[in-house]
Amino acid sequence: MSHTIENKTKLLARVRRLKGQMEAVERALEQEVGCADVLQLVASVRGAINGLTAELIEDHIEHHLLGATNEADRRLAANELETVVRTYLK
Amino acid sequence: MSHTIENKTKLLARVRRLKGQMEAVERALEQEVGCADVLQLVASVRGAINGLTAELIEDHIEHHLLGATNEADRRLAANELETVVRTYLK
Amino acid sequence: MSHTIENKTKLLARVRRLKGQMEAVERALEQEVGCADVLQLVASVRGAINGLTAELIEDHIEHHLLGATNEADRRLAANELETVVRTYLK
Amino acid sequence: MSHTIENKTKLLARVRRLKGQMEAVERALEQEVGCADVLQLVASVRGAINGLTAELIEDHIEHHLLGATNEADRRLAANELETVVRTYLK
Repeated sequence: MSHTIENKTKLLARVRRLKGQMEAVERALEQEVGCADVLQLVASVRGAINGLTAELIEDHIEHHLLGATNEADRRLAANELETVVRTYLK
Repeated sequence: MSHTIENKTKLLARVRRLKGQMEAVERALEQEVGCADVLQLVASVRGAINGLTAELIEDHIEHHLLGATNEADRRLAANELETVVRTYLK
Repeated sequence: MSHTIENKTKLLARVRRLKGQMEAVERALEQEVGCADVLQLVASVRGAINGLTAELIEDHIEHHLLGATNEADRRLAANELETVVRTYLK
Repeated sequence: MSHTIENKTKLLARVRRLKGQMEAVERALEQEVGCADVLQLVASVRGAINGLTAELIEDHIEHHLLGATNEADRRLAANELETVVRTYLK
């Protein structure tokens, strides 16, 4: 099942901002800015990745768990979510 | 909605092991064992907390999202789950 | 090398508060309070564990890295810190 | 203080791989692959960010803490490291 158009647009905007943040890290390393500043940039990338993950999980809950039209689809969506949770909390 | 008896027993066993691990950290500090060893003990507590969290979230998905008997309960369970996810990924 | 008395007292106070928080989780499970409330309590334990870890690492940097009186001790303290960092970021 | 040439090359290679992984996430969203697969890709980006962070911190310890040629530089490097640790563990 695909995401809604509106969600897809929002998610793609987030991912493109993240690519821009990675490019800022790349430039910082090339220009040999201080270690502490590079680490600060990388910490902000990590925050953005966590935000993207939260949004993807929320979408998954809304569309695949609440939006499921039969028990089998809902069961599958729950299994996928449990796998993701274990990946993040292992 | 409460957890099943079987789950409650398993979860309580995990929490009691965690209390034992916290007591090991306390003893290590009292006995002034090396910093690195204390940090190792604390890292294992953190791993156990993550494991407990994953199990609680899995229970929540199984009993409150899949097990909901009407749309309103399922909606509420989804909102609670989304709050938890944002707490962990903020 | 042991921690200073002042630090030890502060660290032990933190660990004892953490044990109290674990007992609150235990009581919450025994009394079958809602899933979302238990998860909230567990999230606060995780926050406290992170705070304890940050304080232990800061102590380690101050006493074992900055406070080392020779190169060999400083090298050892750096290795221990790198091991801890990899444990937390793997 | 700048990183060694060898480290810089290694770090830049990591950052470029990360950019490639972000582009894979972007393509996955554009092509509307399943939610669970996108989340898996994002989890691998997060793992790579953690690996990059660990390497940057290790570099910082080696070059700025162990490599400091006077107490003032070592004190500064320690403060920067403590700030990073608190950012990651808050």
